Amino acid sequence: TKEKYQGNEFAGVVTGLAWTAVGGEILFVETSLSKGKGALTLTGNLGDVMKESAMLAHEYLKSHAEQLDLAPEVFADWNVHVHVPEGAIPKDGPSAGVTMVTSIASAFTHRKVKKNLAMTGEITLRGKVLPVGGIKEKILAAKRAGITEIILSAENQKNLEEIKEEYIKGLQFHFVNTVMDVLDIALLNTKVKKPAKSV
Amino acid sequence: TKEKYQGNEFAGVVTGLAWTAVGGEILFVETSLSKGKGALTLTGNLGDVMKESAMLAHEYLKSHAEQLDLAPEVFADWNVHVHVPEGAIPKDGPSAGVTMVTSIASAFTHRKVKKNLAMTGEITLRGKVLPVGGIKEKILAAKRAGITEIILSAENQKNLEEIKEEYIKGLQFHFVNTVMDVLDIALLNTKVKKPAKSV
Amino acid sequence: TKEKYQGNEFAGVVTGLAWTAVGGEILFVETSLSKGKGALTLTGNLGDVMKESAMLAHEYLKSHAEQLDLAPEVFADWNVHVHVPEGAIPKDGPSAGVTMVTSIASAFTHRKVKKNLAMTGEITLRGKVLPVGGIKEKILAAKRAGITEIILSAENQKNLEEIKEEYIKGLQFHFVNTVMDVLDIALLNTKVKKPAKSV
Amino acid sequence: TKEKYQGNEFAGVVTGLAWTAVGGEILFVETSLSKGKGALTLTGNLGDVMKESAMLAHEYLKSHAEQLDLAPEVFADWNVHVHVPEGAIPKDGPSAGVTMVTSIASAFTHRKVKKNLAMTGEITLRGKVLPVGGIKEKILAAKRAGITEIILSAENQKNLEEIKEEYIKGLQFHFVNTVMDVLDIALLNTKVKKPAKSV
Amino acid sequence: TKEKYQGNEFAGVVTGLAWTAVGGEILFVETSLSKGKGALTLTGNLGDVMKESAMLAHEYLKSHAEQLDLAPEVFADWNVHVHVPEGAIPKDGPSAGVTMVTSIASAFTHRKVKKNLAMTGEITLRGKVLPVGGIKEKILAAKRAGITEIILSAENQKNLEEIKEEYIKGLQFHFVNTVMDVLDIALLNTKVKKPAKSV
Amino acid sequence: TKEKYQGNEFAGVVTGLAWTAVGGEILFVETSLSKGKGALTLTGNLGDVMKESAMLAHEYLKSHAEQLDLAPEVFADWNVHVHVPEGAIPKDGPSAGVTMVTSIASAFTHRKVKKNLAMTGEITLRGKVLPVGGIKEKILAAKRAGITEIILSAENQKNLEEIKEEYIKGLQFHFVNTVMDVLDIALLNTKVKKPAKSV
Ligand SMILES: [Ca+2]
Ligand SMILES: [Ca+2]
Ligand SMILES: [Ca+2]
Ligand SMILES: [Ca+2]
Ligand SMILES: [Ca+2]
Ligand SMILES: [Ca+2]
Ligand SMILES: [Ca+2]
Ligand SMILES: [Ca+2]
Ligand SMILES: [Ca+2]
Ligand SMILES: [Ca+2]
Ligand SMILES: [Ca+2]
Ligand SMILES: [Ca+2]
Repeated sequence: TKEKYQGNEFAGVVTGLAWTAVGGEILFVETSLSKGKGALTLTGNLGDVMKESAMLAHEYLKSHAEQLDLAPEVFADWNVHVHVPEGAIPKDGPSAGVTMVTSIASAFTHRKVKKNLAMTGEITLRGKVLPVGGIKEKILAAKRAGITEIILSAENQKNLEEIKEEYIKGLQFHFVNTVMDVLDIALLNTKVKKPAKSV
Repeated sequence: TKEKYQGNEFAGVVTGLAWTAVGGEILFVETSLSKGKGALTLTGNLGDVMKESAMLAHEYLKSHAEQLDLAPEVFADWNVHVHVPEGAIPKDGPSAGVTMVTSIASAFTHRKVKKNLAMTGEITLRGKVLPVGGIKEKILAAKRAGITEIILSAENQKNLEEIKEEYIKGLQFHFVNTVMDVLDIALLNTKVKKPAKSV
Repeated sequence: TKEKYQGNEFAGVVTGLAWTAVGGEILFVETSLSKGKGALTLTGNLGDVMKESAMLAHEYLKSHAEQLDLAPEVFADWNVHVHVPEGAIPKDGPSAGVTMVTSIASAFTHRKVKKNLAMTGEITLRGKVLPVGGIKEKILAAKRAGITEIILSAENQKNLEEIKEEYIKGLQFHFVNTVMDVLDIALLNTKVKKPAKSV
Repeated sequence: TKEKYQGNEFAGVVTGLAWTAVGGEILFVETSLSKGKGALTLTGNLGDVMKESAMLAHEYLKSHAEQLDLAPEVFADWNVHVHVPEGAIPKDGPSAGVTMVTSIASAFTHRKVKKNLAMTGEITLRGKVLPVGGIKEKILAAKRAGITEIILSAENQKNLEEIKEEYIKGLQFHFVNTVMDVLDIALLNTKVKKPAKSV
Repeated sequence: TKEKYQGNEFAGVVTGLAWTAVGGEILFVETSLSKGKGALTLTGNLGDVMKESAMLAHEYLKSHAEQLDLAPEVFADWNVHVHVPEGAIPKDGPSAGVTMVTSIASAFTHRKVKKNLAMTGEITLRGKVLPVGGIKEKILAAKRAGITEIILSAENQKNLEEIKEEYIKGLQFHFVNTVMDVLDIALLNTKVKKPAKSV
Repeated sequence: TKEKYQGNEFAGVVTGLAWTAVGGEILFVETSLSKGKGALTLTGNLGDVMKESAMLAHEYLKSHAEQLDLAPEVFADWNVHVHVPEGAIPKDGPSAGVTMVTSIASAFTHRKVKKNLAMTGEITLRGKVLPVGGIKEKILAAKRAGITEIILSAENQKNLEEIKEEYIKGLQFHFVNTVMDVLDIALLNTKVKKPAKSV
């Protein structure tokens, strides 16, 4: 079913953009933390490449704890569970990388995710944001869902030229090169009221 | 075989609604706890998506122990076994999510499950209840089995309009948005006599 | 080959009834215990559903140690090995559930299994005994093998009506609802001379 | 290639009889022990059923340590490696059970295996020896290889009737019911000079 | 998409040369370290042979810590994550061996990787560099990407003869025999500002 | 590519003989040790049977530490990594057994491998050396590569009769029955300068 944007009350819930056989769609990445030994659990009918995106996101944050004002040992002390509803739909590909890294970062920092924001882009281990496909379809889906700001890889800027002006009107784009660019834009300094952490 | 509703004497036994090639059916989700290190065991010929539902249910409860008046360490100290009879029938899909989270919650809290109640709905990690398919067939199966109250996702309310009034007569519906809504309705404050816990 | 009933000298050896492409057969479930950390090992060319039956049996007994006068920690201190001869024949399905739970219970309690008794039925985690198929063929096989008492699910009682009186003559049936019913009938209070336990 | 009997200087080396597409063959089961935590390693291109035979043999001996004058903790302190040359040939089936249990028992007890002896038969967890197929072909192969004594399941005695007297002449048969019968015949009281144990 | 060389600011990022159905390409191998027990994690949609290259690289460096002025225990105390963007493209083959060993070595030593350098070659456990295929296509891709120096196995020198002089003009080649040759050329003595290590 | 013999400077590097669809070839088995808990890692695109050869080699040496003047605990304290270049070529079969056991023994003892020596033969757990196929093709490949001494199973001696005298001229053959025979011939008493061990 065609989803609507769902607000930003929850830490660890971030809106992504997917591209399927039937067009673009928004999807949500959810992260929950629980006391443990640093394990990473992935659910939501995810393919291997999408699972690797979550591993990259987790590892990237582990090596950049300081920049996020996190104690480094936090990653060894909490288990991370990343879920992408809806379970009946198989999902794969690297383009949820930015959404996953933002979701996990929000869960650990308790920082709110910017409102009405969606994003798509592959991430690498050193923190680059790579371009992805299906930009046009994803933008249409974002607009339909009530999104007003979109984060894309700088290398995807060229893809906007192929899209009619009217489709883009009212949307603000952020073109980024690095994961830190993404987190700077996406994570607010206000903290959520309902942290995604269990003791 | 077409099952009948089986009472609520046991903690951890919750009635779900399934949708198969030959129509709707009720099914039972059973949970048993045993002293351990927090492992989750799943039986009943379950497919990967249905197994993920149990993982989500377990993780959700772990991060919401406080709201259920449970000591947080309880999830690290008890192994959880979730079973869905009947073993000869392969089962899959996300729609048993609400049934699983209620079953595990009942096992941990010892709270009785409301009588003559059945439910269907996908759950997410942050506790949303998503709509599922086969609503008409499931309602017919519930009625046939002696069910009088049904929990559905609020987003499934629209599916009732397609069903003839006479089929729904005598059934009370609860339309929910969150897992907490489900647990508030399904779990009574009275405790069961036979807890699903072994020492 | 067509087996004969083999006596009840050994704890942990229980006679089941199977239904194959070439008719009914009796089979034996054997359990042996060895000091360990509570692991469950399954052999005999068993399919996934049959393996799940053994997991259910093990878990059920773990949560009902008290009713069997067993110290609860016994399940954490002993490894359980369940075997179903004959290794060349693949076996599957849930109908050996009652046989497996009786076999493991006999091994732990050292109680003798009733003589000339066979059984068939699926078990659930909460201890229900569910009906299974092939009742007619299984009864014929039991009689041929020298069995005189048979335990069936109460829901299988109706299947006896389709069987000619003469086939059933001389057989005593026990129709049960729960695993505890099965154990009450099958396990004698006398202890075996050769316990199935190694130190 | 057609093997010859290879003497009994080594503990843990026992001669079995196999039945392949091209007729009967003798095979050797080798066991080696090394200090560890009781792990069982299986090599020789073995199928699942043959691997289960080794698991049954190991478990059986564990529960019958006393009868073999072995300290029970010996099985927890030594790793067992069972190998069946030749690696290029896939092997499967339950009929090497008696050979495997004799091989492991010889390795642990350091007792010599009787000279010019071969055997075939499935074993069960409680120590029964079940009949197996291909008896005629196996006997011919044993004779060709210089074997003079053969252990078979008592239930295989009938298979000898179909074999011409001249083929059997000069061979001594032992028909057994239990694993203990096998070990009594196969293991001498003299100890080998080269134990199959590493410290 | 056709990548460009991306500088040498990051430790643990090394440029390799790949050969695909559609011609040569440059690829990047990224390594990140995090406190742990010496585990090796591999992402980037890698096939088994490419994963083995990373295992060889890790093991080689472990046994040559001294030559790189590394404390030997460093490999037991840090987890290594090696990633090859882009996740959507399956990658395999042994030719990234030199790139992987340079990437991991740079991450551990914090030494900068030489600028505008690319490399291709299989490595072995004792540190030999073996020749690989697709040299012509790889060189063309390197030039297109702005690479000016290339490391190849000495056994690949003969492959340059088949390439037109003009394609090679402006490129400096290093023909090597061992992994140590590669590291001597590729790793500068200056340290990076952003180490690939998390505490 | 057709390899040349590569000297004996490195401990743990041993020359084997392989037989492929396109004729005989020499191959190298490399072993590297690193401090650990006795794990065995295998790389080089090896099939299951070839992996089993390495397991047999490792286990054999473990049980014969004394004969090689090795402290028995050395096998529990060092991880063993065995690699067979070249990664792009799948390899399988039991005939590298002698090469593997020599390679691991050389790595542990630091003893040099005899110069210009190659070998082929399956090993068993008790230390027998079994005959293998492709002898003619392997000998031609050895000669082409500059090998002057070859170790074969005594049971392969007959295969030399089918080979023209001129092909064998200049080659010295060692026909062996046991792994100890192989190690006696292949391992010199001089120690290598570069041990294959990391601390
Ligand atoms: Ca939906
Ligand atoms: Ca959707
Ligand atoms: Ca049924
Ligand atoms: Ca049913
Ligand atoms: Ca049989
Ligand atoms: Ca039978
Ligand atoms: Ca052979
Ligand atoms: Ca043979
Ligand atoms: Ca791309
Ligand atoms: Ca590319
Ligand atoms: Ca090559
Ligand atoms: Ca080659």
